[in-house]
Amino acid sequence: MTTESAFIAALRGLATHPAARGLDDDCAVLDIGGEALVLTHDMLVEGVHFLPEQDRADVAWKLVATNLSDLAAKGAEPLGVLLGYQLGQDDSRFLDGLHEVLEHYGVPLLGGDTVGGAGPQAMGLTALGRATHRPVPSRSGARAGDRLWLTGPVGGAMIGLEALRAGAGGDSMAYRRPMALLAQGWALAPQVTAMMDVSDGLLLDASRMARASGVTIDIDSAAVPLACPEQRRQEALRWGDDYQLLFTLPGNAQPPVPAHAVGRVLPDQGAALLVDGAPLPAGAALGFEHR
Amino acid sequence: MTTESAFIAALRGLATHPAARGLDDDCAVLDIGGEALVLTHDMLVEGVHFLPEQDRADVAWKLVATNLSDLAAKGAEPLGVLLGYQLGQDDSRFLDGLHEVLEHYGVPLLGGDTVGGAGPQAMGLTALGRATHRPVPSRSGARAGDRLWLTGPVGGAMIGLEALRAGAGGDSMAYRRPMALLAQGWALAPQVTAMMDVSDGLLLDASRMARASGVTIDIDSAAVPLACPEQRRQEALRWGDDYQLLFTLPGNAQPPVPAHAVGRVLPDQGAALLVDGAPLPAGAALGFEHR
Repeated sequence: MTTESAFIAALRGLATHPAARGLDDDCAVLDIGGEALVLTHDMLVEGVHFLPEQDRADVAWKLVATNLSDLAAKGAEPLGVLLGYQLGQDDSRFLDGLHEVLEHYGVPLLGGDTVGGAGPQAMGLTALGRATHRPVPSRSGARAGDRLWLTGPVGGAMIGLEALRAGAGGDSMAYRRPMALLAQGWALAPQVTAMMDVSDGLLLDASRMARASGVTIDIDSAAVPLACPEQRRQEALRWGDDYQLLFTLPGNAQPPVPAHAVGRVLPDQGAALLVDGAPLPAGAALGFEHR
Repeated sequence: MTTESAFIAALRGLATHPAARGLDDDCAVLDIGGEALVLTHDMLVEGVHFLPEQDRADVAWKLVATNLSDLAAKGAEPLGVLLGYQLGQDDSRFLDGLHEVLEHYGVPLLGGDTVGGAGPQAMGLTALGRATHRPVPSRSGARAGDRLWLTGPVGGAMIGLEALRAGAGGDSMAYRRPMALLAQGWALAPQVTAMMDVSDGLLLDASRMARASGVTIDIDSAAVPLACPEQRRQEALRWGDDYQLLFTLPGNAQPPVPAHAVGRVLPDQGAALLVDGAPLPAGAALGFEHR
């Protein structure tokens, strides 16, 4: 029996090529013909990553948009996607959503594979893009003295999932139809010292950026913009699925797109993450680990 | 309810980009930075594409080797793979096989995603390569007057699967550890008029080549080399999983690698496929459709 984290650690041991920047939580960046190709692959499983009763058009949207969000964080222009699709219920709704999201982003479907099989439905998507700026932004470039920025509010997907579960007609769009901030990523790529998308929760993703960069990041929790009621701020800092871009800029630099200063980068203090100047209690949950 | 073939037809309707040469049965070929990038994605589901009790090291091998075989048929040099992996039983054996196959072919693991989930295990692999010759060989270039060639015998995977199921110690390697004929593909790419790998059965794949090329292909069934007893020739022509390269060359040209002349290309006779000069009865099975 291998645990998921042991499996991932072993996979990382196999992924020693310089293009493999990180498995499971970062894109690969491959030089080819003078271009930098950016590659990402995500897999979704029914009951784990989407609700069995969820509209498959929304699942298709999310599958594509979240992979494009990974490209956005690299400042990459999408070249296309490859789909791996296990047939399930409501495949025609999946097609509807796939058509919508590809058209929305102007991204071609380049290929893929369709398979049968009983049991929970699984699907995978590979997105590839061309870097618009080199060096390609990474999560490892944050430096002491930088400020930490966020393109928009968190907590919207949390509220959206609750609305979807309640079925009461509340606005679930932020959960069902996340947006990939491609244009923002392109504008930011030449200026950031580090960048990533917030997929697993602001605190968790910021701590990953800090670890990758060998620094400590101090989050100013009151400065984080919310798409949920103020009393849920602490939850919203830990909730994922909002797909805002999180980036660092040198001290006084202003971002070229609307964004909120939400923290600062310090020399390594031991802890990767501080919230309002203090480390979190050991074992405190930061967000969604390995969903 | 959407049938698998209707779903694939609808997906093809979405895959209108010129790089999307065919969905589910061909690679995408994308121009970038003066290079032609070749992309393929396959998905495997437990109970459909591999036996639940099958050694996961063999499953890993097959997942990678069959995708590399798609690259071989394009004369492409592999640049790397991305893995989508749902944790299941015996993940450490999967890692062993993955390590073996990547090392055997000298191909890097560039990235991927690991997910949880109950039910039959699903996994996907995206392989990308760089074309070594342009134009990149396709299945649509066969011309009347060409001869049809095959790099080696068929029927080995059929015998191998039987040996594996019988568990009697017979040689199951051809089924468990198919080879991607990369060097042969590189040598052939500059000379072939059409090329593909035989994954779903010689007759079925030859008929696909004929349809894509707008010609009729006449198979000389006695000339097809076998890796099984002679009395099983008819089955072997329809069995898949052997991953030989099937290609066409102008009339008198000799291939640069060992190969067997197994048929000829005729002007379109109505039927895509003839066997020994005669069309097959309507509805006759040619091989594995959409496994």
